[in-house]
Amino acid sequence: MVAMCVGGELREKNRQPLDGSHAHELKGVLKDAGVKLTELSTHLQGQLVAAHPAYDIAFDGFAAPSVRCNPKARQEWAVNQLLFAAKASRNLGLTAHVTFSGALAWPFMYPWPQRPAGLVETAFDELARRWRPILDAFDEAGVDLCYEIHPGEDLHDGMTFEMFLDRVGGHKRCNMLYDPSHYVLQQLDYLEHIDIYHERIRMFHVKDAEFNPTGRQGVYSGYQPWANRAGRFRSLGDGQVDFGAIFSKLTQHGFDGWAVLEWECCIKDSEQGAAEGAPFIDHHIIKAATRAFDDFAASGVDLATNRKLLGIG
Amino acid sequence: MVAMCVGGELREKNRQPLDGSHAHELKGVLKDAGVKLTELSTHLQGQLVAAHPAYDIAFDGFAAPSVRCNPKARQEWAVNQLLFAAKASRNLGLTAHVTFSGALAWPFMYPWPQRPAGLVETAFDELARRWRPILDAFDEAGVDLCYEIHPGEDLHDGMTFEMFLDRVGGHKRCNMLYDPSHYVLQQLDYLEHIDIYHERIRMFHVKDAEFNPTGRQGVYSGYQPWANRAGRFRSLGDGQVDFGAIFSKLTQHGFDGWAVLEWECCIKDSEQGAAEGAPFIDHHIIKAATRAFDDFAASGVDLATNRKLLGIG
Amino acid sequence: MVAMCVGGELREKNRQPLDGSHAHELKGVLKDAGVKLTELSTHLQGQLVAAHPAYDIAFDGFAAPSVRCNPKARQEWAVNQLLFAAKASRNLGLTAHVTFSGALAWPFMYPWPQRPAGLVETAFDELARRWRPILDAFDEAGVDLCYEIHPGEDLHDGMTFEMFLDRVGGHKRCNMLYDPSHYVLQQLDYLEHIDIYHERIRMFHVKDAEFNPTGRQGVYSGYQPWANRAGRFRSLGDGQVDFGAIFSKLTQHGFDGWAVLEWECCIKDSEQGAAEGAPFIDHHIIKAATRAFDDFAASGVDLATNRKLLGIG
Amino acid sequence: MVAMCVGGELREKNRQPLDGSHAHELKGVLKDAGVKLTELSTHLQGQLVAAHPAYDIAFDGFAAPSVRCNPKARQEWAVNQLLFAAKASRNLGLTAHVTFSGALAWPFMYPWPQRPAGLVETAFDELARRWRPILDAFDEAGVDLCYEIHPGEDLHDGMTFEMFLDRVGGHKRCNMLYDPSHYVLQQLDYLEHIDIYHERIRMFHVKDAEFNPTGRQGVYSGYQPWANRAGRFRSLGDGQVDFGAIFSKLTQHGFDGWAVLEWECCIKDSEQGAAEGAPFIDHHIIKAATRAFDDFAASGVDLATNRKLLGIG
Amino acid sequence: MVAMCVGGELREKNRQPLDGSHAHELKGVLKDAGVKLTELSTHLQGQLVAAHPAYDIAFDGFAAPSVRCNPKARQEWAVNQLLFAAKASRNLGLTAHVTFSGALAWPFMYPWPQRPAGLVETAFDELARRWRPILDAFDEAGVDLCYEIHPGEDLHDGMTFEMFLDRVGGHKRCNMLYDPSHYVLQQLDYLEHIDIYHERIRMFHVKDAEFNPTGRQGVYSGYQPWANRAGRFRSLGDGQVDFGAIFSKLTQHGFDGWAVLEWECCIKDSEQGAAEGAPFIDHHIIKAATRAFDDFAASGVDLATNRKLLGIG
Amino acid sequence: MVAMCVGGELREKNRQPLDGSHAHELKGVLKDAGVKLTELSTHLQGQLVAAHPAYDIAFDGFAAPSVRCNPKARQEWAVNQLLFAAKASRNLGLTAHVTFSGALAWPFMYPWPQRPAGLVETAFDELARRWRPILDAFDEAGVDLCYEIHPGEDLHDGMTFEMFLDRVGGHKRCNMLYDPSHYVLQQLDYLEHIDIYHERIRMFHVKDAEFNPTGRQGVYSGYQPWANRAGRFRSLGDGQVDFGAIFSKLTQHGFDGWAVLEWECCIKDSEQGAAEGAPFIDHHIIKAATRAFDDFAASGVDLATNRKLLGIG
Repeated sequence: MVAMCVGGELREKNRQPLDGSHAHELKGVLKDAGVKLTELSTHLQGQLVAAHPAYDIAFDGFAAPSVRCNPKARQEWAVNQLLFAAKASRNLGLTAHVTFSGALAWPFMYPWPQRPAGLVETAFDELARRWRPILDAFDEAGVDLCYEIHPGEDLHDGMTFEMFLDRVGGHKRCNMLYDPSHYVLQQLDYLEHIDIYHERIRMFHVKDAEFNPTGRQGVYSGYQPWANRAGRFRSLGDGQVDFGAIFSKLTQHGFDGWAVLEWECCIKDSEQGAAEGAPFIDHHIIKAATRAFDDFAASGVDLATNRKLLGIG
Repeated sequence: MVAMCVGGELREKNRQPLDGSHAHELKGVLKDAGVKLTELSTHLQGQLVAAHPAYDIAFDGFAAPSVRCNPKARQEWAVNQLLFAAKASRNLGLTAHVTFSGALAWPFMYPWPQRPAGLVETAFDELARRWRPILDAFDEAGVDLCYEIHPGEDLHDGMTFEMFLDRVGGHKRCNMLYDPSHYVLQQLDYLEHIDIYHERIRMFHVKDAEFNPTGRQGVYSGYQPWANRAGRFRSLGDGQVDFGAIFSKLTQHGFDGWAVLEWECCIKDSEQGAAEGAPFIDHHIIKAATRAFDDFAASGVDLATNRKLLGIG
Repeated sequence: MVAMCVGGELREKNRQPLDGSHAHELKGVLKDAGVKLTELSTHLQGQLVAAHPAYDIAFDGFAAPSVRCNPKARQEWAVNQLLFAAKASRNLGLTAHVTFSGALAWPFMYPWPQRPAGLVETAFDELARRWRPILDAFDEAGVDLCYEIHPGEDLHDGMTFEMFLDRVGGHKRCNMLYDPSHYVLQQLDYLEHIDIYHERIRMFHVKDAEFNPTGRQGVYSGYQPWANRAGRFRSLGDGQVDFGAIFSKLTQHGFDGWAVLEWECCIKDSEQGAAEGAPFIDHHIIKAATRAFDDFAASGVDLATNRKLLGIG
Repeated sequence: MVAMCVGGELREKNRQPLDGSHAHELKGVLKDAGVKLTELSTHLQGQLVAAHPAYDIAFDGFAAPSVRCNPKARQEWAVNQLLFAAKASRNLGLTAHVTFSGALAWPFMYPWPQRPAGLVETAFDELARRWRPILDAFDEAGVDLCYEIHPGEDLHDGMTFEMFLDRVGGHKRCNMLYDPSHYVLQQLDYLEHIDIYHERIRMFHVKDAEFNPTGRQGVYSGYQPWANRAGRFRSLGDGQVDFGAIFSKLTQHGFDGWAVLEWECCIKDSEQGAAEGAPFIDHHIIKAATRAFDDFAASGVDLATNRKLLGIG
Repeated sequence: MVAMCVGGELREKNRQPLDGSHAHELKGVLKDAGVKLTELSTHLQGQLVAAHPAYDIAFDGFAAPSVRCNPKARQEWAVNQLLFAAKASRNLGLTAHVTFSGALAWPFMYPWPQRPAGLVETAFDELARRWRPILDAFDEAGVDLCYEIHPGEDLHDGMTFEMFLDRVGGHKRCNMLYDPSHYVLQQLDYLEHIDIYHERIRMFHVKDAEFNPTGRQGVYSGYQPWANRAGRFRSLGDGQVDFGAIFSKLTQHGFDGWAVLEWECCIKDSEQGAAEGAPFIDHHIIKAATRAFDDFAASGVDLATNRKLLGIG
Repeated sequence: MVAMCVGGELREKNRQPLDGSHAHELKGVLKDAGVKLTELSTHLQGQLVAAHPAYDIAFDGFAAPSVRCNPKARQEWAVNQLLFAAKASRNLGLTAHVTFSGALAWPFMYPWPQRPAGLVETAFDELARRWRPILDAFDEAGVDLCYEIHPGEDLHDGMTFEMFLDRVGGHKRCNMLYDPSHYVLQQLDYLEHIDIYHERIRMFHVKDAEFNPTGRQGVYSGYQPWANRAGRFRSLGDGQVDFGAIFSKLTQHGFDGWAVLEWECCIKDSEQGAAEGAPFIDHHIIKAATRAFDDFAASGVDLATNRKLLGIG
């Protein structure tokens, strides 16, 4: 069943492990407030599992103060946070978790300067080496680790996910968070994407986006701020994402996770976005069919009759 | 290398096996005439390997007179012709052969009347049972058997080819002849098709087609004759097939068979079609690149340098 | 006025004629239940007026048990059912009736094997011969006979309807039920279709559909079940049909029949489909304009003034 | 047969009737020069058969000096020129003639100001009244009168041609010159146009055009000169006209007139346009097929066999 | 803020100046009725500021009876009405006013007959000469004069607005009323139009339209009445205008005028159009975002840090 | 006049200034060889004028050995090379020069991590500071400096060019090399681009490209090598660039530089690419029209007549 969380993502803020008793307490608080916890997120910590030095300064604020300006310590801290998140998720009774893969090769995304032979392979070997123990920890906790496929991360499209999955031996906890907005902005076919990867899609962000190239800018959008970019995120229903087709495909493939509203819009006020987003998702939820529509005309036919129909009796 | 045969398909007319000495003689005759034999074809015989009784009368003229009006004998004759063709191909030094799969389930192509459960599976089980020994014979002869994927045959698109391939155990001689005209007429994505099936595409018919639906007719074209149909074959260059993209994809995937001109046009005279078709193909042949275009800026870089570039030194 | 029937088609189940007193009683029952009867249907019986032997087994279950396995008796029974339906419709005060044409030539829909000269003409001559007395009976009853234009039937698009209409002498009771879903699946231009045939469109099924061809399948959809087909029916609003344009065109051409919700969806649960479908149709109903929007600027002008305006005074 | 005239239209310059002996002499001169005369044109004179006073000054230069500034005399002169052209065409052995319809209602093309009731009808009644005797004269001469369908004329699209044809009683000499460039500029579907009107298309101008609307201008092109207009004429091959489809459709419908190169381009030099235009047309000429491409598989089948195939034996 | 006026345009009917006390009284009446006055309109009077004689008769009914059949007096009257409107707007506390530019060159919209050199320049020089004092009067009154860009007027697209604006010296009160329906009908890119002219767009009509060319007609629509035209106005939501994109762009560019419902539909009843139009607009109103969506990850960074990030420390 | 250089770009190899006598000698050598020198290029040196440290290693091989591993010295060397190139160009009688802008902000192309306020402004201030003296040197030499707008450079689209141009005070020597292949790969509207920037386009690379996104990759192309990328360069005619429209626009705007064949194709052999590319360009060259095509109907009209036509006489 496809379900819905109105009100946006719940972002995991704890920087410490969450033990069993705290988890029990937290669930009580949420239940009293009528809120259901759907997952924890470690986007910022995952980012720090693998960070190219060009972004050291920019990402440093994501880390605990004690490990800032110290990439090695920072990375260890980040890995530890992920291991904590696995345990916390289990303690909270959750079955999926979202994060970023981090990036080692992103500065070399465009093939200028020419990439020396082996550069990408080296990057992905290292990335897999770092994540494998984390994936094992999540497996132990019975939780799917879902990478949000996202520009700026080494896992930013299907090809990179495949290269990574291959290097972690097709690990069963190595999964995806599907967010079509990131695909609109890179003009990836987000519908065919579901047909190819549906078995690995375990989380779903309902976020809209649009891409309107002009004679002045295309995908790179000329270092412009969000409102002036050809590609930009929008409130649900204001962008170009065909959510009808997405919900149909996810239902067809038996996706049973949450449909999580994510709001990022440079035009519309966030409260209007939230107020419209909840019914927007509600309107798209599909209760899966449980019987064939044309069974009224079905007749019980056996193999012998089938052979007769085919003229091979 | 992609090559070209101007003047249309050479159709195999012999109803008898072609032994070694005849083959030698035939090759001499062709060589003297400056003609190169690229393959034999058994479209009509393959059709009779599996024919639904609804078409018994219509296809009967394809068979040798002695077996007409006798479906069982006719089928045996057809299988035998295929076995002969395998041997003849080997004797002529050919490596590929084209045929039709025949059809048992075609009358039930559209799901009205509702197909009883198991009908399609029964049909494909039987089809595979009939073709397996033939495929083995072609394997013995060292020749690829290429089914022309074609409406009216049980193998008429990628899905049906997959169902069949599965039932013949992924037989290595079970391959495809790729003819985009049949895909235009059923609105199948003929470019993505190459990306999916390129390893099984061993023959290639260069035939053009167009599909121009109106308020009066669509794909079924209302029992109209060819010239009045929404979907119709055309001389090369007069239809909608993007041959530039096809030749690019086949070259990229290393296809090294012939590019065979097939002419079927309801508008243009056949001689004009042939005269224009040869240079049309010639113009599309791509000599594959053998080196990278940006190696002028390449530098010899080792693993250590790569790690430095990635900031993981 | 365009109206709406929520809850799906009412399917005629009676196998016996409905005389005046029964009709009166039935209308009373329906009225008490707050239900309005809009039409009777004989899809299954019409199918049996003309059935190619290839489908004898598959369609046999549609007939009364006494005439099964006896094509000749079955056809007579089917014709009789149609004659009964004409009378029953009149007795119930109905003015339109829907059926299928049946099919003699459908196995030869694709021109392979080549159709012998005259085959289609022979089929339509026979089809018209069988239906002419039925059309006369409906005329006598004051009821329009509407063929649902549908794959699997000889009347499956505009061309075939024209060939048939011509052979029944342009019979005034020979009309169409318009269902755009069947046109999406064959990629016929369903909007231009209304412009051409609106005078013969007397019934309207509001059913949605989508067609998403891939590199694996096109229109024929490789013998796949509904959920896996490139072309498939969908709940209202989930497909690709432009109902805004359809309701506009039907209103423009003065269509005054019912807008009948037909639900067939392989993805969504039927109850959700029905619950959404009713307001969907309600939202599309157009109250026709009764005056020109720009008459505020109109002035009474006579012929003399017109000639002055044109400079031909 | 579709033929070609390289070098542009021959424009009729004579203001006097061309009698038999002059015609004979002229044909001799042309023959010696290796030039074939395909038709005469009276675009400028036809324009003056019906001219709204708003254009009196602008069109006055088209008339003989003696009738300028005198609309009534000018119109009589124009009609007379047309009658002369009919005779001259017959004397020259020509079978088609091209002209403009002139316009009475063109200033009211856009429905602002609102058109008073009956304005258009009055205009077309008068237009038909003026042209009927001219059409009769062309009939007498055995020559088709072809109106070039053109903005600025009352006959500027299919609808206006139909209104006119209706008012001249479907006169058999009332025909069209088909020039797709004028349809691109008004965004009319020039291919469907051939399907509808092919029986009345007796002449063909091969002229290219493009329409590239922007945020600054659309079809009306803001009073800009040609080079700056969203819609503009182009040399053959430089515009957006799909000539492959046009030649296919004209061939399919048996068009046997000339394919006349007309060059009007605001970008390219006229000599380059002519030098490229001739082979462009030559490349598009289609020799019509004279036999079916699939007759190799045809078999002689009689009515009895057809009935067997349909299961109605 | 984008606001909305349900119930259609308020059309200014007064033919006399509205002095301060009348204005005060009128505002009281409206306030009691719960109606807010958003602007006055002088479409009909503006039209008469510049009218080509070809339309003298057709537009005469727009004028006060005393000046009819007297173009010179009529024009003076029209100019006076505009001057009154400036004062009345000020007295009513309004800040924007809508009108038509009138037209001198419209009969020469299509470049046949060829326009003599200088014709367009002469027309726009004269048009600017007539409007300059009116623009000054509006400036004095503190009111923006907004030309509704409209076929039939000399200001009918962006190019013509630019030519005019240039001739009135970029007058700050020379602005536009943006109505996308007029752009759909001339196939102008109405979205890019906002990007170019947003600084001059001060009023906004929410009106829908569609353009469906066929083989019979294109943009000129063959003198047909509205319901039969390829291009026609429609009730909100029934046409092809992408209002989501329009409201996004206007919000992005800070438009703070009213979103005025204008209903002109040849298919749907006006009351249904109004009842649906109000919530349609309400649904599209965007409350502008006041903070960046990604500030959660922002960090206070100074110039020195920026230089470090860029490697230019 | 648009001209053509067959055989690819001439790349400047000299690392030393080229004085007058060497230039004279070089021109003699080229003339004897029948080669015309069209421009010098400093792509690699320009890149080093501004290089973010993340690319220090990758770009180091572009520099003279003596300055490698020393970014400061390397930058000085690069600036010096540019100053030499200005003089060499003048000595060789050239009027245009092509280079890359280099990049400081490219690692922050995608707005994740969030860019701190002022980062882009700081980068462009610095970039302009470095290039201003070089632009002055080119001005002194009478040579246009043309930045090839290219991913990986800070000047990679129209927006970035505008930001830079603004910071160099609209320097008249600050121009563009237009290469549509780089725009296809970022999905920028390369035709509208010419309309906006044509006054600054002084050089033109004729290079083709295609973009075929799938469900696996979009614009970023997942670190794949060229042949496997959704966006990739192609030999002329094998990609998606509409060169007909480009040559039309450049001709319309009076571009008079060279049309330089640049070949980079991952599919086709370079020699085939060159052999086909030369006639491809030749076929697209347009000799600009020198007179209006419709002057045959022009009449000498004076202001008085124009006023009469407009009804303002």
